[in-house]
Amino acid sequence: MSDYAPVSEHLDDVDAAREEGRRKMDWALQHMPILTELREQFEAEKPLEGEVIGMAMHVEAKTANLVELLALGGAEVAITGCNPLSTHDDVSAALDANDDITSYAVRGVDDDNYYAAIESVIDHEPTLTVDDGMDMVFAIHEEHPELIDTIVGGCEETTTGVHRLRAMDEDGALNYPVFAVNDTPMKRLFDNVHGTGESSLANIAMTTNVSFASKNVVVAGYGYCGKGVAKKASGQNANVVVTEVEPRRALEAHMEGYDVMPMKEAAEIGDIFVTTTGNRDIITEEDFEAMKDGAILSNAGHFDIEIDLDTLSDLATEEYDARDGVRAYEMDDGRRINVLAEGRLVNLASPIALGHPIEVMDQSFGVQAVCVRELVENGDNYEAGVHDVPDGLDKEVAEIKLAAEGVEIDALSEQQREYMGSWSHGT
Amino acid sequence: MSDYAPVSEHLDDVDAAREEGRRKMDWALQHMPILTELREQFEAEKPLEGEVIGMAMHVEAKTANLVELLALGGAEVAITGCNPLSTHDDVSAALDANDDITSYAVRGVDDDNYYAAIESVIDHEPTLTVDDGMDMVFAIHEEHPELIDTIVGGCEETTTGVHRLRAMDEDGALNYPVFAVNDTPMKRLFDNVHGTGESSLANIAMTTNVSFASKNVVVAGYGYCGKGVAKKASGQNANVVVTEVEPRRALEAHMEGYDVMPMKEAAEIGDIFVTTTGNRDIITEEDFEAMKDGAILSNAGHFDIEIDLDTLSDLATEEYDARDGVRAYEMDDGRRINVLAEGRLVNLASPIALGHPIEVMDQSFGVQAVCVRELVENGDNYEAGVHDVPDGLDKEVAEIKLAAEGVEIDALSEQQREYMGSWSHGT
Amino acid sequence: MSDYAPVSEHLDDVDAAREEGRRKMDWALQHMPILTELREQFEAEKPLEGEVIGMAMHVEAKTANLVELLALGGAEVAITGCNPLSTHDDVSAALDANDDITSYAVRGVDDDNYYAAIESVIDHEPTLTVDDGMDMVFAIHEEHPELIDTIVGGCEETTTGVHRLRAMDEDGALNYPVFAVNDTPMKRLFDNVHGTGESSLANIAMTTNVSFASKNVVVAGYGYCGKGVAKKASGQNANVVVTEVEPRRALEAHMEGYDVMPMKEAAEIGDIFVTTTGNRDIITEEDFEAMKDGAILSNAGHFDIEIDLDTLSDLATEEYDARDGVRAYEMDDGRRINVLAEGRLVNLASPIALGHPIEVMDQSFGVQAVCVRELVENGDNYEAGVHDVPDGLDKEVAEIKLAAEGVEIDALSEQQREYMGSWSHGT
Amino acid sequence: MSDYAPVSEHLDDVDAAREEGRRKMDWALQHMPILTELREQFEAEKPLEGEVIGMAMHVEAKTANLVELLALGGAEVAITGCNPLSTHDDVSAALDANDDITSYAVRGVDDDNYYAAIESVIDHEPTLTVDDGMDMVFAIHEEHPELIDTIVGGCEETTTGVHRLRAMDEDGALNYPVFAVNDTPMKRLFDNVHGTGESSLANIAMTTNVSFASKNVVVAGYGYCGKGVAKKASGQNANVVVTEVEPRRALEAHMEGYDVMPMKEAAEIGDIFVTTTGNRDIITEEDFEAMKDGAILSNAGHFDIEIDLDTLSDLATEEYDARDGVRAYEMDDGRRINVLAEGRLVNLASPIALGHPIEVMDQSFGVQAVCVRELVENGDNYEAGVHDVPDGLDKEVAEIKLAAEGVEIDALSEQQREYMGSWSHGT
Repeated sequence: MSDYAPVSEHLDDVDAAREEGRRKMDWALQHMPILTELREQFEAEKPLEGEVIGMAMHVEAKTANLVELLALGGAEVAITGCNPLSTHDDVSAALDANDDITSYAVRGVDDDNYYAAIESVIDHEPTLTVDDGMDMVFAIHEEHPELIDTIVGGCEETTTGVHRLRAMDEDGALNYPVFAVNDTPMKRLFDNVHGTGESSLANIAMTTNVSFASKNVVVAGYGYCGKGVAKKASGQNANVVVTEVEPRRALEAHMEGYDVMPMKEAAEIGDIFVTTTGNRDIITEEDFEAMKDGAILSNAGHFDIEIDLDTLSDLATEEYDARDGVRAYEMDDGRRINVLAEGRLVNLASPIALGHPIEVMDQSFGVQAVCVRELVENGDNYEAGVHDVPDGLDKEVAEIKLAAEGVEIDALSEQQREYMGSWSHGT
Repeated sequence: MSDYAPVSEHLDDVDAAREEGRRKMDWALQHMPILTELREQFEAEKPLEGEVIGMAMHVEAKTANLVELLALGGAEVAITGCNPLSTHDDVSAALDANDDITSYAVRGVDDDNYYAAIESVIDHEPTLTVDDGMDMVFAIHEEHPELIDTIVGGCEETTTGVHRLRAMDEDGALNYPVFAVNDTPMKRLFDNVHGTGESSLANIAMTTNVSFASKNVVVAGYGYCGKGVAKKASGQNANVVVTEVEPRRALEAHMEGYDVMPMKEAAEIGDIFVTTTGNRDIITEEDFEAMKDGAILSNAGHFDIEIDLDTLSDLATEEYDARDGVRAYEMDDGRRINVLAEGRLVNLASPIALGHPIEVMDQSFGVQAVCVRELVENGDNYEAGVHDVPDGLDKEVAEIKLAAEGVEIDALSEQQREYMGSWSHGT
Repeated sequence: MSDYAPVSEHLDDVDAAREEGRRKMDWALQHMPILTELREQFEAEKPLEGEVIGMAMHVEAKTANLVELLALGGAEVAITGCNPLSTHDDVSAALDANDDITSYAVRGVDDDNYYAAIESVIDHEPTLTVDDGMDMVFAIHEEHPELIDTIVGGCEETTTGVHRLRAMDEDGALNYPVFAVNDTPMKRLFDNVHGTGESSLANIAMTTNVSFASKNVVVAGYGYCGKGVAKKASGQNANVVVTEVEPRRALEAHMEGYDVMPMKEAAEIGDIFVTTTGNRDIITEEDFEAMKDGAILSNAGHFDIEIDLDTLSDLATEEYDARDGVRAYEMDDGRRINVLAEGRLVNLASPIALGHPIEVMDQSFGVQAVCVRELVENGDNYEAGVHDVPDGLDKEVAEIKLAAEGVEIDALSEQQREYMGSWSHGT
Repeated sequence: MSDYAPVSEHLDDVDAAREEGRRKMDWALQHMPILTELREQFEAEKPLEGEVIGMAMHVEAKTANLVELLALGGAEVAITGCNPLSTHDDVSAALDANDDITSYAVRGVDDDNYYAAIESVIDHEPTLTVDDGMDMVFAIHEEHPELIDTIVGGCEETTTGVHRLRAMDEDGALNYPVFAVNDTPMKRLFDNVHGTGESSLANIAMTTNVSFASKNVVVAGYGYCGKGVAKKASGQNANVVVTEVEPRRALEAHMEGYDVMPMKEAAEIGDIFVTTTGNRDIITEEDFEAMKDGAILSNAGHFDIEIDLDTLSDLATEEYDARDGVRAYEMDDGRRINVLAEGRLVNLASPIALGHPIEVMDQSFGVQAVCVRELVENGDNYEAGVHDVPDGLDKEVAEIKLAAEGVEIDALSEQQREYMGSWSHGT
């Protein structure tokens, strides 16, 4: 048994923290139509009655609304952070004030306490796990395999977590079903295009004080994220330049009316660069050599590997913080190359970053919530291993959002359904 | 043996026809960068040497450039029309003037001669077939099964043709490999979005003399075609309204900033309607009842089943041609509902329609050409039956277009390729 | 007295013509919300009672609805064409069938009859004139000065007409007030931007069969027309290139995200050119020399002076009609340069041109109608000479259109009006 | 003589402050192409040699680059702040380190010292004044009329300052020429549309953590600012709703494809509101009553009078800070209405606001610089009083920006100039 105590015992003024945390949660909930709708359903139907959910996630206002939703659905929830620096103590305290929730998340804990907090969560004997980085799944498989028999299943939010779970799965080492709540069609279409696009540009604007109109904005990669950044930058009257390696994506960008060219050429004309490829070495030495004085470089891809900062640092005769969140590298010819947020995700790692837009998390957490419900209701249908989110659940969340926003749509008539069927299945 | 003669023997002034046809072909070729590029390759490499290609397609200027490309590649080509009304005699004559091409296509032939012309093509003993509606495949399987042994394979352009071939295939009745050259990723992305979108709206504008700015344009269906129509109408400052039955598509349209609502509501406010669903009964009685006086209805989906014209006709107290290509239905309350091109594809069936934009056919025919080459070079790799176009060929056509338009792109480095590989395959 | 008879006496089957003409008028009226609204007002209030209006305008369906509106307002109207080739006899006959209207417009009349028809109109002893090219004003001043005393005033639609009237005015030779119904704020903002933009591009698309996506569309001039063409081309996913001589307009285009460059450079990359400057020699010899094979040239400015066709013709080794409405000029290096509509206004002079979009004329004619009413009601307030349309009338037409389309707007409160006043007039 | 000392004597660690201030100036200058270009010219030509410029402006990095430019042009500059809270001490210190500049601006000074600092500037006996709120002009006219004889002229940046100067002028009390460097065509077109539009939305996004896609964004007023906000919001896939009182502007918005309606109706559906009218009482009691829970209200107009906060506060049962920069008003039915930046300019007054985008100030300051030069070179041409910026200077700044960004444009030929002239002046 871990003796690591809930957050409320770690804070000086718990009441003030709870009030402040509640306000943050309230703010977020105002812009979470999906969770708001699900609260009504879960509260009325109590689909999670009798379950214990163990969670390790970023404990901030948006997540907190998911946690509370699960509790409203009838579950007992125990939660801790998935990163010692991402916890908001006030939000953690607000959650901990709920009788059905125990929160162990405290900002800035050391490694020992970080793991002690995970242990404390596991002491609740969860029947479900909800992870943002597979900490909970991993701790249970490593340290508490005896719990696995009673575990219905789990959800994992991140790409990296899912990646590792698949590796475990391939090795036959994953012993309960886990939904990969990461890349559903809805998430790809909305988060990446709209969420990443808008928030990356807003962070760039508010970190640098520059405007986009007439700027050459170089977008590296024309996947969903790249499309979003290109579309939103173009919507701010930037002249968008796209670099790509896949000819059909390149042609797609070209047909959209964007300039398409190799990075080496784009480097010469770019005012602002945004990498979105998910690959390494997108902006490298020959590009740095070609850039204009004052170029602004940022990354909207998962890892800080897209801009080759080591080489840039080697090339620079001087390095300094030009502004909060802007690192300037001065070349020997006097040109200054400016890198935002150390080349990490600009919409998450810039000094004023607020994380993903609320609506994006609303949708992700909506999928989490219906996945948890699905595991409770139909967990037996899923074998141990990683599972894609069933299409129907993704669709359900879309339906909830449309309903919550008052958007009605048509339904197929019997004749139409028949016609489509006859067509696709042959006659 | 069919005694149906080539087109040159059917025309009065063959020389004039040939010159005129050649000009039409020249015009199209100026805007076909892919075929232009492939002409150089095919002429230099003669990949089709020794083959005989039997074709049944719409014989007009764009297709004619494909036909000539195949001949330049070393093949002997025999062709006839796939629809008695779509043949341009002058283009047919221009093709027939080529020593390596025999064209039997003549506009307005009767049924007997239509089939006699197909027979004449088959008399050339084709080793490959290229169809736009499977006439050639069908005639060979039904009437000339003895040729099948020496046939390398075929290409089929249309959705309906592919649909029927798949049915044959399921019945085990398709005896050589046929590429379904219809719905490659490139075609979906470019033709449907840009080609159909732009040409539908241009036809509507030039048939009606109305402008789009501030109009409520109702787009039924938010698949690729619907996205194209919505995007281009919005780019003309229309207020776009989308109707859908699939919640995620509906949400996608909503997130784009469009109004989404059921058709019944859209019917009340729409100025111009464009159906793109591929399904039947999209605009029906209750919609007609709700429409404003002067509403304009058009269809950009495959068949003329999306607008329920029979019911509209029943409801109308009077029907007349309000303009060339515009049928007006007057309701008993005096409202006039105007249907373009009899509810058939507005970009193909309106009186001034020019068919698909040249660039769209350039791309389709580019895929056709590399598919024919693939069958000649690697036909043994494909079993009898319907085959999707191999991804590599689709990609090759994208590369040719980019090259032809002078667009260069990046290539993955060894390290990048490794990084991507390690990531997607696990460690 | 002229013995030139009304159109009804010139036609063989007057009844058929009248029916056909009425259908054309009906079609247009369905898309003319302003005239529709004014019909109700004019019919109820009869503001033109007792007046005789002499008109020389293009007699086609859109104009005909203005003519009929004036008659509904209580006036007797006599009309003839302002160009022997622009008359639609059927529409002319439909007008002539109205007891309050006499139409002398007949298509294809010779010069003598053209002027005889004007005389016939003047025989009605007009108290107001409405012109499209000042024919009526001119004939009255030259031949029938005795009528001037009883003439309340006139309206002139065209830029050229207004230009000449101002010259007359400066010479003290214009003896009654004429409204320059040409360049009101509403017309500049809507016609030029939306009307010319959309219809120019639709004509280009439907004359050439090309699409705009990814094309380099070079727009010469960034005034209202140029802005419209650029905006609409960009909305079709073209890559827009702007040429300008005024630095602030150039900067405006640059800030919008467009490429701005001299024509000489634009000539090298342009796929489609649209001139909108109103000036001569916009595309000249050095540009022709630089162009790509297949370049498409068109003009959306008033006169056919923007593309230097004489020089192009001199440079060409061969000239021919590549398509209906497309003149091809073949250079000695084989490049083909294609000029649409002989360099005349592409949205009016292309073979399939329908004239301005109906909504554009609805607005122009709405201004005409309220101007005529103003002359009748307050003609004494205007001295002889050319007058700009009073701002209030332009505004009234905007209000009518908003009302007709069901758009409501706010009104200033007393306090707000005071606040604005105090602000702008100082304290 | 004022004994208020320069900033350097007020700071503890002057060297550190100077270094930090210089970095801020460097950052801004990287994104100020116009000032960068003018630095070269001014340094080479020394057009301000022998002049003394007295300034009262916001002393931050962008302004500082103007100050330094004037010094580079040969002037001695003395400056103080125009608002005790807007001074950046480090930037002030960096300026003060320049031998030709004395800066008296210190953050947070009390009233006495604020005016003492103005006196200290005047002790330098300026021959020109550059103001941001007319403090310098006013102090000289009130307290040091003896200086007026040697004063060449002045520049005033703000709308309010210009407004008051015009009042002085009308009273005959303004005794030297002052340029109203506020509303040149360039500023209206670029600052208002692009600068205000982009920075308002970025501030809203980064204060609230919401995204714009699919949101109903209500823009009150469709002047330049409103157009900018609408355009940029639409470019982020918002559904834009416009409210207006002027019918032609309303129609312009309608033709653009936006929804136009009275505020009372917009209030019911709006998610995010941005007022841009410059008038009072734009969002009032009946609107608050109609709003949805969670509505976000912001202002991008000059004063905090557009949202009726007093009434909102009266209506609220509770008020609290929902987030930094977000004031929540809870209605008795539980709805929360959220007001950003206390209803003051959201792009200047939000907690993370950076002021106008750098490029916007680059342009304003470019106009300032050429106006100062004009006064030195041609001051005698201007009588005492308020003067609009001569068109040629505005144009020159546009030319400098185009040149600085490498954009070349065409020039009129002699024939073209003649043609335009003949046309507009008659023949």
